[in-house]
Amino acid sequence: MALASAVMDLSHGILFTDLYQLTMAQLYFRQGLAERLARFDHFFRTYPDYGTHQAGYCINAGMGDLLDWVEAVRFGEAELDVLRSYRSVTGGPLFAEDFLSWLGDVGGFDAIALRGVPEGRVVHPDTPITMTEGPLAICQILETPLLNHLNYQTLIATKASRVAEAARGGTVLEFGMRRAAGFGANAATRAALVGGARFSSNVGESARLGYPAKGTHAHSMVQVFLALGGDEIDAFRAYAEVYPDDCLLLVDTIDTLESGVPNAIEVFEELRRRGHRPVGIRLDSGDLAYLAIQAARMLDAAGFDDTTIVLSSNLDELAIWQILAQIEEEAPRYGVDADALMGRLAYGVGTRMATSEGHPSLDGVYKLVAVRDDGAWRPAVKISDSPAKVLNPGAKRLWRVYDERGRATADLMTLQDEEPTPPLTLHHPSLPAVSRFLPAERVSRIEELAVTIREPGRPGDRLGGIEAARARREADLALLDPGVRRLVNPHIYHVSLSPRLWQLKQSMIADATHQGAG
Amino acid sequence: MALASAVMDLSHGILFTDLYQLTMAQLYFRQGLAERLARFDHFFRTYPDYGTHQAGYCINAGMGDLLDWVEAVRFGEAELDVLRSYRSVTGGPLFAEDFLSWLGDVGGFDAIALRGVPEGRVVHPDTPITMTEGPLAICQILETPLLNHLNYQTLIATKASRVAEAARGGTVLEFGMRRAAGFGANAATRAALVGGARFSSNVGESARLGYPAKGTHAHSMVQVFLALGGDEIDAFRAYAEVYPDDCLLLVDTIDTLESGVPNAIEVFEELRRRGHRPVGIRLDSGDLAYLAIQAARMLDAAGFDDTTIVLSSNLDELAIWQILAQIEEEAPRYGVDADALMGRLAYGVGTRMATSEGHPSLDGVYKLVAVRDDGAWRPAVKISDSPAKVLNPGAKRLWRVYDERGRATADLMTLQDEEPTPPLTLHHPSLPAVSRFLPAERVSRIEELAVTIREPGRPGDRLGGIEAARARREADLALLDPGVRRLVNPHIYHVSLSPRLWQLKQSMIADATHQGAG
Repeated sequence: MALASAVMDLSHGILFTDLYQLTMAQLYFRQGLAERLARFDHFFRTYPDYGTHQAGYCINAGMGDLLDWVEAVRFGEAELDVLRSYRSVTGGPLFAEDFLSWLGDVGGFDAIALRGVPEGRVVHPDTPITMTEGPLAICQILETPLLNHLNYQTLIATKASRVAEAARGGTVLEFGMRRAAGFGANAATRAALVGGARFSSNVGESARLGYPAKGTHAHSMVQVFLALGGDEIDAFRAYAEVYPDDCLLLVDTIDTLESGVPNAIEVFEELRRRGHRPVGIRLDSGDLAYLAIQAARMLDAAGFDDTTIVLSSNLDELAIWQILAQIEEEAPRYGVDADALMGRLAYGVGTRMATSEGHPSLDGVYKLVAVRDDGAWRPAVKISDSPAKVLNPGAKRLWRVYDERGRATADLMTLQDEEPTPPLTLHHPSLPAVSRFLPAERVSRIEELAVTIREPGRPGDRLGGIEAARARREADLALLDPGVRRLVNPHIYHVSLSPRLWQLKQSMIADATHQGAG
Repeated sequence: MALASAVMDLSHGILFTDLYQLTMAQLYFRQGLAERLARFDHFFRTYPDYGTHQAGYCINAGMGDLLDWVEAVRFGEAELDVLRSYRSVTGGPLFAEDFLSWLGDVGGFDAIALRGVPEGRVVHPDTPITMTEGPLAICQILETPLLNHLNYQTLIATKASRVAEAARGGTVLEFGMRRAAGFGANAATRAALVGGARFSSNVGESARLGYPAKGTHAHSMVQVFLALGGDEIDAFRAYAEVYPDDCLLLVDTIDTLESGVPNAIEVFEELRRRGHRPVGIRLDSGDLAYLAIQAARMLDAAGFDDTTIVLSSNLDELAIWQILAQIEEEAPRYGVDADALMGRLAYGVGTRMATSEGHPSLDGVYKLVAVRDDGAWRPAVKISDSPAKVLNPGAKRLWRVYDERGRATADLMTLQDEEPTPPLTLHHPSLPAVSRFLPAERVSRIEELAVTIREPGRPGDRLGGIEAARARREADLALLDPGVRRLVNPHIYHVSLSPRLWQLKQSMIADATHQGAG
């Protein structure tokens, strides 16, 4: 068959990287720098801005999959043969045999150490989220897959968290496979689970992660019965017969209130008479708020007030927010209790979550911060026209400062050998004149955010997997200011440098600017 | 290691689908309908609208990967065990053993036939692009992976085609891995190649597809030399030493015009003295049009007018269009020939192409159009509140009508047994009052667009692979009206129904509306 596993592995294995990582690796090898220890920081620069709404925090995600990948991939003969086939402009080999032999001996990412903020935690721009240390050439090859895994999953976990917040505790189901980016649909499923979706419709990835997938039926099932001369209710009856205790019916194939809901109620009554409890209905088109109210009214009148109403169709956090606002306003007019209705709603959220509609990429980067030289770490800096893009230099630590209310008030970067103690002076990362002073009595706790994820040569720590990540997310959100959690125009959370790190940054900018001009 | 291949296969194998496809499949099995022949059409409803700009055509892509997947995946014991583990609300098994046994016997998608428009061809909304025929339950399970592969790759191929058109023949390189959606980065690479990118930086996927990847070095290489006490030029010299015939230098780490370009020219002169021909430079920040002009001027003055200038940094079709417009206006002022400069430009296009920034999903759907019954095909229709969403019923054929200039003027859907001959009456698909008459002398050619892609039980036809798809794209674009190709506010291409298909649709809407009310 065409998709031989060896071929499949080529595009999912260690060659899942950009070519320039390998050309740079060979240069480092040739310069005697390939095994020189280096440190790279991964961070993102800006929160997603969806246009009409903006994120005030992100949910960190992706490390579990990155670890799986890092621990599975190797430079085997197939991979080395690919590189061996590369030709210089003049026709000779682009990669020399001694370099390929070194790659083969190194094999993979065994020598890499990773520290970072655990998955599920709230994270902010310009702070080091993942810190990589290892041989320079190997760190370089890791750049692309690391960013690929972490950028996308953090993006989607963030979107899912917003959707879950908009749903006010209602169950969110991830339904995005059909319009997600190829096999990236699996990463969307995982990230959505970390970020706040309770389940997904994706069978394979759910199984891999240890979750059951969710879903019942589509319009096509009703259409089959119609095409064969039956009615919508025949389709519903057939479904109820096969799934008497799991009967959730999609009611909008013909007409939601004229046909779908009455037919569903008739079938539910038949189920009830046979001793089964119907699960509910799904609404997939039209004015979902109005239809949910009317459907609830009809279900209540028939004694099915314990059934679920699943909403789907182009949902995102704003759509859900608006639907719930409309229900709060409109339900009482029809004699429907708005809180009771909201308590029975669930949300199938697809395309807009899996693509992070409005902001489809996170701008995470992976930057060299230090190189080992003569027994010391030499900090690296990249000068840029834009002050906001100048790197915070050297190896760093990241702390979260909680105020007197116990709320997170700032994330603070320090040098590697600093342990911040109150009172604190917090420097703005790019504006030299801006700083903030926190007296000791305003600081209730200072927490280091990064943990050891992987020591060289040892399996990485999955930190409890997805359920633990979900718990960390909930705990962090509870400690975040509501203004920062706001769906639209959120309050800006403070990200700061310690005085010593700030001083180092200023002096390195001066040096590097001098060096560049010289 | 954690990513055992069996686990990997679960999430990339036949369970890469939505759960409801499997619950519906069991229902069809229980109703004796699982092996009933059915036909499903795949089509999309709207062109991507990126907000400030809009597509007037799409480039069909994804079938090659879908065939690879369809031919590789099976219901093996691991997959059946996953389904066996599903539980009903009441605790019993959700999937019965006779159904699982049937799935295991069926195995995979052997019985599926596929017809469709070849990859690379221009396609339009509401026309059947892929037609699936096979056992109802198996067609249903295929829905999710088919849409996943075709929606995303068509979306990205369309974006790539626009980028390539904006580049006016300049080489487009796909650079999107770091911010693409997990392993969906591979689908982005493939689709970009179909749509107009010449190469990609993605090593593994390029290898799988038989292309070399492209790329040279990043800022980090320069930073390493700076951190170790060297200068930018030391990094450039090291690169030129390792890659004397493939020397393309990234010149914006410190300051493009003050440091990067002069240092690159110095190293290029050293290379020239040693008998090598430098390849060029890459600009990755700042005003790319202005910097390209100034860099070209400096390179020309040093006798390197044959070097390439690669532009990168948040490029998309509009950015490239604006850069080239600025170069046309501004280059002459600096004594630089604008055409010569544009002729040496190449474009590294990443995030905005791999995510289809502005419109990150294509709204392709897969709808039941007919079910076999008593030796005849029963057409299916889904009524909707919105006339535009009412399906075009039954099995259909798709034709492209070329006008007297030889230009594509309309795509025409007919019934399965129709062969349209001029003169033609073309009905608007949703507005009953709108039709267009084409006299015979205005029709130069009528071409059927769909071809046989796969017969049951036989390997699918890849139709010449990616290079053939690229050639089809170029041929189709040459026959498309420039107004339809326009990047902003394109002219709307006509999609039409034959009189007989239009009549069938009207009568089925009447019947189904009656049935729904009954």
